[in-house]
Amino acid sequence: MQSTQAPFERQPQSTCAEGSFHQCQLTTNREPKKVSLVGSGNWGSAISRIISTNMKAHPSLFHPTLRMWVFEENINGRNLSDIINTDHENVKYLPGYKLPSNVVAVPDLKDAVDGADVLVFCLPHQFLSTLLPKIKEQGLVHDCIGVSLIKGIDFNEKGIVLVSDIIQSGLGIDCSVLMGANVASEVAAGDFCESTLGCNSLRHGAFLQELFHTDRFHVNVVLDAHGVELCGALKNIVALGAGFSDGLGYGGNTKAAIVRLGLIEMKKFCYRFFNGIKEDTFFESCGVADLITSCFGGRHRKCGEHFVKDKGVTWETLEATVLHGQKLQGTWAAKEVHRMIAKTKAEREFPLFTAIYKIAFEGADASTCLV
Amino acid sequence: MQSTQAPFERQPQSTCAEGSFHQCQLTTNREPKKVSLVGSGNWGSAISRIISTNMKAHPSLFHPTLRMWVFEENINGRNLSDIINTDHENVKYLPGYKLPSNVVAVPDLKDAVDGADVLVFCLPHQFLSTLLPKIKEQGLVHDCIGVSLIKGIDFNEKGIVLVSDIIQSGLGIDCSVLMGANVASEVAAGDFCESTLGCNSLRHGAFLQELFHTDRFHVNVVLDAHGVELCGALKNIVALGAGFSDGLGYGGNTKAAIVRLGLIEMKKFCYRFFNGIKEDTFFESCGVADLITSCFGGRHRKCGEHFVKDKGVTWETLEATVLHGQKLQGTWAAKEVHRMIAKTKAEREFPLFTAIYKIAFEGADASTCLV
Repeated sequence: MQSTQAPFERQPQSTCAEGSFHQCQLTTNREPKKVSLVGSGNWGSAISRIISTNMKAHPSLFHPTLRMWVFEENINGRNLSDIINTDHENVKYLPGYKLPSNVVAVPDLKDAVDGADVLVFCLPHQFLSTLLPKIKEQGLVHDCIGVSLIKGIDFNEKGIVLVSDIIQSGLGIDCSVLMGANVASEVAAGDFCESTLGCNSLRHGAFLQELFHTDRFHVNVVLDAHGVELCGALKNIVALGAGFSDGLGYGGNTKAAIVRLGLIEMKKFCYRFFNGIKEDTFFESCGVADLITSCFGGRHRKCGEHFVKDKGVTWETLEATVLHGQKLQGTWAAKEVHRMIAKTKAEREFPLFTAIYKIAFEGADASTCLV
Repeated sequence: MQSTQAPFERQPQSTCAEGSFHQCQLTTNREPKKVSLVGSGNWGSAISRIISTNMKAHPSLFHPTLRMWVFEENINGRNLSDIINTDHENVKYLPGYKLPSNVVAVPDLKDAVDGADVLVFCLPHQFLSTLLPKIKEQGLVHDCIGVSLIKGIDFNEKGIVLVSDIIQSGLGIDCSVLMGANVASEVAAGDFCESTLGCNSLRHGAFLQELFHTDRFHVNVVLDAHGVELCGALKNIVALGAGFSDGLGYGGNTKAAIVRLGLIEMKKFCYRFFNGIKEDTFFESCGVADLITSCFGGRHRKCGEHFVKDKGVTWETLEATVLHGQKLQGTWAAKEVHRMIAKTKAEREFPLFTAIYKIAFEGADASTCLV
């Protein structure tokens, strides 16, 4: 299928099945919508600069204040939320970049989300099981929608559980996702980049595009929330393989082969285990582009390289030393994805995922990654 | 469309429409086939190591000697062809790697190709207009086939002219192409990589796969010679854009966006101006993988970076200084591709190609590459 859309242009307003853009808005109620950002780490702070600027620029669409839930921390005797509200900078997670004054840090979760029409989730997914019941308890406005910027997936005995589905079922609201080749520091610096908004409804997609899209942060909408979110999780497995290749000292040919084979296995995995996945999703920023940034930069590539070079090192040690305590999503994903593949006896169809799992967890030699 | 083939496996023998592999061979005549390699540069020498090894390993399929046409040069008082035949090393173009003893350098073109069943072309395409008439004059065996490893395209007043078509019409033989993420030095070193054999006939594809495929050099066959060859030419344009981004100091997000948008415009361009192009080709090594290596390594990226940093420098100067006299295919391609786009008033559909052309040739600011 040929992509007919000019890549630099915004999605045309006619992507909305219901007609013109103004009919596409979140509800027929024309009140400006209140947006709350749940999370205030590195990526959350970077995206708050974009969201809050768009909210201010479109007063007919958005209430001008972006409430940002901050997990309160004490920084040199001051509360982080006070620092953000006074100095307009998240000195801990995004130092050096001012946050617009309409970003208001709120340390109480219920106060942060009260009356919100849009909930933007941007925090480690492990927090959700505690937070979602509290948000639900607070009560949600009619037609509230969610959008997850959380990269990572969860697992239960049946296999993968997508974060957007956790939010959707935890709160009873529709949940879109935003994923792409979006290294937070580069987004904060204003470098051009792209992102993909995966939604279940074009009405929601068109509205959320207004919230996220800028001239320097291009947002394409695809009607494939699951595909977009799966890309964000599966690419971390491939990035481990790219790190193994770097650790072995291989060059650009081998790295390119890993990226390509990884992309094909990502597609195949999605088609095999999920319904409604769209081919075009893999050509979006969340697909091939995010995969590339992860395989050339990124923490998974880095830890993969160390895993090969520092013979015998454990993943836990690498998380502690290389990542200063941050967790690798990709090792967990590699294990769980392999479990799903093995259960259906499909190892031969996923040779790269299988090899990466065996190298990471069964002591296989790294050189077997591509043979 | 889901790719159903396990990426590490060879193409199944059933890719041949005519039945089992043995019926797939080049002709019904079971004589071992003679192969000649026209060209002996860096890439030609690297691939000669692979071809000659396969020829020796399959005596029922191939005559064991690989004749390699060498443009004779004097190296410290000795003929290059003598050095290759005595010392088994191309000391000028692939120093440090032995060539198998069944690679025989032949300085006379007619002697090199006489009686060949397979002609492998691997030299700058500018030589073809002189060489092809000489080869034709020599006479070709019945059912002789060609395969082009030449990256680069030609142009006439109508637009792009593909090298495989030049060979095809110049010699009256079918011509396949082999392209991919194949940096010659890494192939010579035996690093794992992949390549794509684009053919017009699966019978020829299956036979040529036997000539090129090894455990470390995986060859996939696609029935889309034009698509494969176009990828090899168009990616150089995108790589110039990647270089501009590097020259401006942008990071991984921007580079990934350029690769992605470039891939989409490559697809769109092929569909627009050529018939029979297959979507899967862009997922092959010749597509996304070669594009990645070119945008992260490669001479076009490098010269693109210099073009931005060394303000006012000309492409000719960069070819002379950075490339030591080698020519950039991508600048020429950018110009000719833009001419085809402009002629059909399709600039809006090819914003990246258009921007790269304008930066390269019309003095546009490099920062306009992605806006």
